[in-house]
Amino acid sequence: MEFSVSGFKASGIAAGIKKENTPDLALIFSEYDSVAVGIFTTNKVKAAPVLLTEDHIMDRWARIIIVNSGNANACTGPIGIKDARSTAELIAKELDVRTDEVLVASTGVIGAPLPMDAIARAIPGLVSEMSEGGIAAAAEAIMTTDSFPKISSIDGEAGGQPYRITGISKGAGMIMPNMATMLCFVITDINISGTLLQNALLSSNEVSFNRITVDGDTSTNDMVLVMANGAAGNRNLTTEEYDDFVMALKKVMTDLALMIVRDGEGATKVVYVKVRGAASEEEALKCARTIANSSLVKTAFYGQDPNWGRVMAALGRSGIMIREEDVSIWIDDVQIVGGGLGLGKDLEEKAADKMKNSEFSLIVDLNQGECEDFIVTSDLTHEYVSINADYRT
Amino acid sequence: MEFSVSGFKASGIAAGIKKENTPDLALIFSEYDSVAVGIFTTNKVKAAPVLLTEDHIMDRWARIIIVNSGNANACTGPIGIKDARSTAELIAKELDVRTDEVLVASTGVIGAPLPMDAIARAIPGLVSEMSEGGIAAAAEAIMTTDSFPKISSIDGEAGGQPYRITGISKGAGMIMPNMATMLCFVITDINISGTLLQNALLSSNEVSFNRITVDGDTSTNDMVLVMANGAAGNRNLTTEEYDDFVMALKKVMTDLALMIVRDGEGATKVVYVKVRGAASEEEALKCARTIANSSLVKTAFYGQDPNWGRVMAALGRSGIMIREEDVSIWIDDVQIVGGGLGLGKDLEEKAADKMKNSEFSLIVDLNQGECEDFIVTSDLTHEYVSINADYRT
Repeated sequence: MEFSVSGFKASGIAAGIKKENTPDLALIFSEYDSVAVGIFTTNKVKAAPVLLTEDHIMDRWARIIIVNSGNANACTGPIGIKDARSTAELIAKELDVRTDEVLVASTGVIGAPLPMDAIARAIPGLVSEMSEGGIAAAAEAIMTTDSFPKISSIDGEAGGQPYRITGISKGAGMIMPNMATMLCFVITDINISGTLLQNALLSSNEVSFNRITVDGDTSTNDMVLVMANGAAGNRNLTTEEYDDFVMALKKVMTDLALMIVRDGEGATKVVYVKVRGAASEEEALKCARTIANSSLVKTAFYGQDPNWGRVMAALGRSGIMIREEDVSIWIDDVQIVGGGLGLGKDLEEKAADKMKNSEFSLIVDLNQGECEDFIVTSDLTHEYVSINADYRT
Repeated sequence: MEFSVSGFKASGIAAGIKKENTPDLALIFSEYDSVAVGIFTTNKVKAAPVLLTEDHIMDRWARIIIVNSGNANACTGPIGIKDARSTAELIAKELDVRTDEVLVASTGVIGAPLPMDAIARAIPGLVSEMSEGGIAAAAEAIMTTDSFPKISSIDGEAGGQPYRITGISKGAGMIMPNMATMLCFVITDINISGTLLQNALLSSNEVSFNRITVDGDTSTNDMVLVMANGAAGNRNLTTEEYDDFVMALKKVMTDLALMIVRDGEGATKVVYVKVRGAASEEEALKCARTIANSSLVKTAFYGQDPNWGRVMAALGRSGIMIREEDVSIWIDDVQIVGGGLGLGKDLEEKAADKMKNSEFSLIVDLNQGECEDFIVTSDLTHEYVSINADYRT
């Protein structure tokens, strides 16, 4: 029960939404009224479950998260909205909660109607399968192209009361719109207000899911939901306890985000792109993002080639002022560029050795100021092309 | 002599800059004073020849274009600037023109110094090889990963005097910064003012090189130069004659741009992404560009999969307001989406058939207004990854 959280039950079953009779329907149920907050895709084309859940979470209370994989219920028009609402109604009735206490998420193929018959038939079983340790089964049921389930847990203490945070996520390759990819659900038994939980989620998201990229695309279905049911019984959090909680939430969400990059579509490398010496954090992030999203840089990672010319070109089109002659570049601790100039083949060979590892850092110093930021990315591989060229066939 | 232009001579030889003793140094020489205009990379990291040529072309006069392939002379610091200037000085002396009448371009590996000895040794031969038909040899000498030389010509008439426009370009995959990719040089014997030529270049560039994309990266070395030496002897252009000239220049530059997409790195498809029914041309272009640069859309082209969910997701993150329920999508003349909804598997299969062709159109109607624009792109293939992962090794 290392992942179980007091007052929560969960389950994951095969409802027949996917063809292969693999788990495709997940449930998280809080036995108590629970604070709930969320972050949703910025894509203007939002799937039906995103629109419904944005509505249901507005009051910052919820009891249930229900998620299907295999079908994104995106670009499905008014029928999609009706189906998302029906899903909420069905599970609400079965568990005797209000429909607006149900949060719905979907992931899978875009543009096909949800198989509502299959979902309706599966709901009694989904509920009867619920258990305190069921969150692991839920983690499996939300997978699509994922090669492994993603789950992370951490224990904390507030006012002498122990609490736990457990999160699950799905996504292989951030972001893959056709799979309506990135989903993350976090449950905790800490007692916390909706306002504080929202703040904690925003700052945790900044250093986790907002710092990973695989191909720069955003999805129609992305969402991160956090529920806190207060079963730990702690009193109001002190500032220190709140900070501890944020730290713990960051740890869980960063774990889950890194698992997504590691499971990136066809990825063989996880690369930390760090930009320092920037005039502002915003500029540092802009540079890191441009480098991390460059197809040319990412294929060079795959080729284990310290091809810093591509990094310089990415910096040059990142939209910030670059003084070429001030730029230094490292692979881990091997400097390959100083004062904007290459430092020679010997060092490039040493850097190429570092790039043989499955994880390494690309560090850029702009020498313009004191600010820094980072993005975690993967390489662009033959396998990425295979997965995405062949996905629907 | 179908490509030769009155009053211009050209040549292309192997100077030993590339390892394989293939042509790598090109010369274009105007026997008369010539109007010259140019467009240069927007990348903040500009190669030395870009900086020098931007300076030399400011007065809109030139006599010589000298281009080397195999070395970009980018990220080479003060030595790079000195080398670019030395190149100009050497050829200026040999042909008895002023140094500031020489335009220099380079393409190839970033970060290595130009082999000035090899260039200096080659210059007498480069000049002695010059001929009226030499522009074809020049087209070969500017190639890097290109699989074929790119040249296009058109004849026109102004005030009863015939003139010709001939252009050459290089680039396989737009844009590939490490190869410092996209170069285009156009010569014509029309008599035209610098101001008019500049306007003609800007509007031609908009519909040609500014409408192609392979991977969304921009290079440190991109440039388009046009020289017009007036040897045709026409008087001042009438408005109609100027319009005809612009039309002809657009034709040549569009030809050359499409050759670059066709020769795109590992590309198997050329796809016209057309967005219509937009509220403004700017919004149409933004949508077309986001779709055309999406790795997921481009792998779907490769997979011949009419995966319109990825197109919808790209529209959703293009930064413009999208009314999902108003969007229609076609592959050539086969409509696969209407009112934001898929129109069924039968039509998708018909669309997939169209996608087997080496060229097809993806048409998006936003139904928001009367404006439209387009981008020409290629697919993202296994071969793209191979070329870019292995380029320097």
